Amino acid sequence: MTDSFTPVSNLGEFGLIDRITSILPDPLTDTRIVCGIGDDAAVYRTSEGMLQVISTDALVEGIHFDRTLTPMTYLGGKAISVNVSDVVAMNALPRLATVALGIPRNMSVEMIDALYHGMAAACDSYDIKLVGGDTTSSPALYLAVTIIGEVSDDRVVFRRGAREGDLVCVTGDVGGAYAGLQVLLDQRRALDEMGETFEPDLEAHRYVINRLLTPKARLDFVSTLSELGIRPTAMIDISDGLASELNHICRQSDTGATIRVSALPIDPITRAVADQYLDDADTYAFYGGEDYELLLTVSPEDAEALEQSGHALIIGEILESSAGIHALSPDADMIPLQGAGYDHFEEPFSGDGL
Amino acid sequence: MTDSFTPVSNLGEFGLIDRITSILPDPLTDTRIVCGIGDDAAVYRTSEGMLQVISTDALVEGIHFDRTLTPMTYLGGKAISVNVSDVVAMNALPRLATVALGIPRNMSVEMIDALYHGMAAACDSYDIKLVGGDTTSSPALYLAVTIIGEVSDDRVVFRRGAREGDLVCVTGDVGGAYAGLQVLLDQRRALDEMGETFEPDLEAHRYVINRLLTPKARLDFVSTLSELGIRPTAMIDISDGLASELNHICRQSDTGATIRVSALPIDPITRAVADQYLDDADTYAFYGGEDYELLLTVSPEDAEALEQSGHALIIGEILESSAGIHALSPDADMIPLQGAGYDHFEEPFSGDGL
Repeated sequence: MTDSFTPVSNLGEFGLIDRITSILPDPLTDTRIVCGIGDDAAVYRTSEGMLQVISTDALVEGIHFDRTLTPMTYLGGKAISVNVSDVVAMNALPRLATVALGIPRNMSVEMIDALYHGMAAACDSYDIKLVGGDTTSSPALYLAVTIIGEVSDDRVVFRRGAREGDLVCVTGDVGGAYAGLQVLLDQRRALDEMGETFEPDLEAHRYVINRLLTPKARLDFVSTLSELGIRPTAMIDISDGLASELNHICRQSDTGATIRVSALPIDPITRAVADQYLDDADTYAFYGGEDYELLLTVSPEDAEALEQSGHALIIGEILESSAGIHALSPDADMIPLQGAGYDHFEEPFSGDGL
Repeated sequence: MTDSFTPVSNLGEFGLIDRITSILPDPLTDTRIVCGIGDDAAVYRTSEGMLQVISTDALVEGIHFDRTLTPMTYLGGKAISVNVSDVVAMNALPRLATVALGIPRNMSVEMIDALYHGMAAACDSYDIKLVGGDTTSSPALYLAVTIIGEVSDDRVVFRRGAREGDLVCVTGDVGGAYAGLQVLLDQRRALDEMGETFEPDLEAHRYVINRLLTPKARLDFVSTLSELGIRPTAMIDISDGLASELNHICRQSDTGATIRVSALPIDPITRAVADQYLDDADTYAFYGGEDYELLLTVSPEDAEALEQSGHALIIGEILESSAGIHALSPDADMIPLQGAGYDHFEEPFSGDGL
């Protein structure tokens, strides 16, 4: 970010497209891409014998993020990562991205630059090409990203394939992003109350803040599965919270499930934040969301191999449908796990997080 | 639309997805679609030897449309059509669509139904499948559509291929959508002034209002080109106005061009509306936009064949770059044609239309 601010209207259409194109790497370095930004549509030569996966997901100001808490470069990166995460959850490799950007009038060209730098860096880290999109004025900042990916017929994984007896695994710790949101909201309250005398203390909570602001899609896990020769029976990324995602898998697979609370991977900083606010870290883990780890079901042998490799943890078991979906507490209580539902339409900034 | 209104929050996430899925035809009837709505991403089996084209375009309330002037079914149809139009402009056939929908809290479930009915009918008319997307709350109504289409290597048409000596053609009349906008805005002003004594008179202007509210992508023209064995050297759809689109082609092809004003196809109703408001119909035609006809450049022989077939009109000629881009008036004046620029960031509801 710089000290000077340029209204977007100063650039004109060609100016804005040129500026955006200069920030993004040239997509034509990928020989499968015949045409990238600047025509009516991108053109892509598909691989033979591969399935394509297409995922669209939007981030909306005031619903998914608060601009005052979210640096633009992070937001750009997150918009790409959360969409790549959906493609990865099909066990597919992401290839192309398009972005429909709605820009409010109070955003400067420098903020748009930062947004695109964030998107460009994220695309680079996942080895995908941003090949087009649409940029328009909008009452609030709006980023709708579409990712197109590839997977072979014999590797694709749906939500609907979980079977009774499969074990439930997760690829990393959960609840951290929600803890990060609590820290940021708390620091802002303190800033509002104390004004300039307030000194933010973010370093101790850096890990959970990063979980929230700079999530990474687990593209590496697609390689891990391939190397281990494991194909999950079902997989989903954790965007709305573990409980909600488990409900999706069980509903579409017509199964029940039990998750052992004691087996949940929760980072010590997440626990410390929950303690500080007199919250329950398990609730962060089940309902917090935004961690973008993968939740998967596999055969018991595959689960064993995955856990031994250190790439995933076994946290529960798939049961028959009539058993329902529960958390098994350390006291052996069975607590029903609800699907999160559409919190967006109820209360922004609560429930499923930022 | 019905008399009763249901808040979206009444449905819950699964309820809303179920409701939307029930409105849309089952995508799995297309055997190339392996997985449609309801997983992390759609999965599509590509044809061999074909290029894929991917187009993303958004319609934003307050920028591209005014909800009080636009029935929801029309808006849904238009969101699909304007994106299909981009795919058609590559000489490609559209196959799949995804939609990222941002829904304001004051929209009812019945309005969302109407929007999806409009999208479903449009998708059906173009023989494309809506395979997924994202639905979230939003400060304003926002529709970002991505269309994926296919075209063979030897049929794809870019903006960049126009050559000196090519003729410029257009597939239908221009300026009508802008005239339709003037009529609707005028009728609303009259309604505001006269209240209940006002009787709207829309029938006489039905043609131009339909050009605005229910545009059709010229998918039929892709078949026409194929049947006539003609491959344009460059092609673009007219969304921002003929002058702006011609600037895109000339800029990317490094050419100039002259358009004969007397050759512009303008509907008599468009002329009548322009006369009524003491406007110049040629200005509507050059700068109005939103007509979604195709602007193309072809060799003189192909242009002749196209015009004789009745599917396109010759309106100008491609010149060397130094000649610039002009309109040739009936009085033999050469008037420079400007690219429209980013009117969105200047004044909504002016310049490039609704």
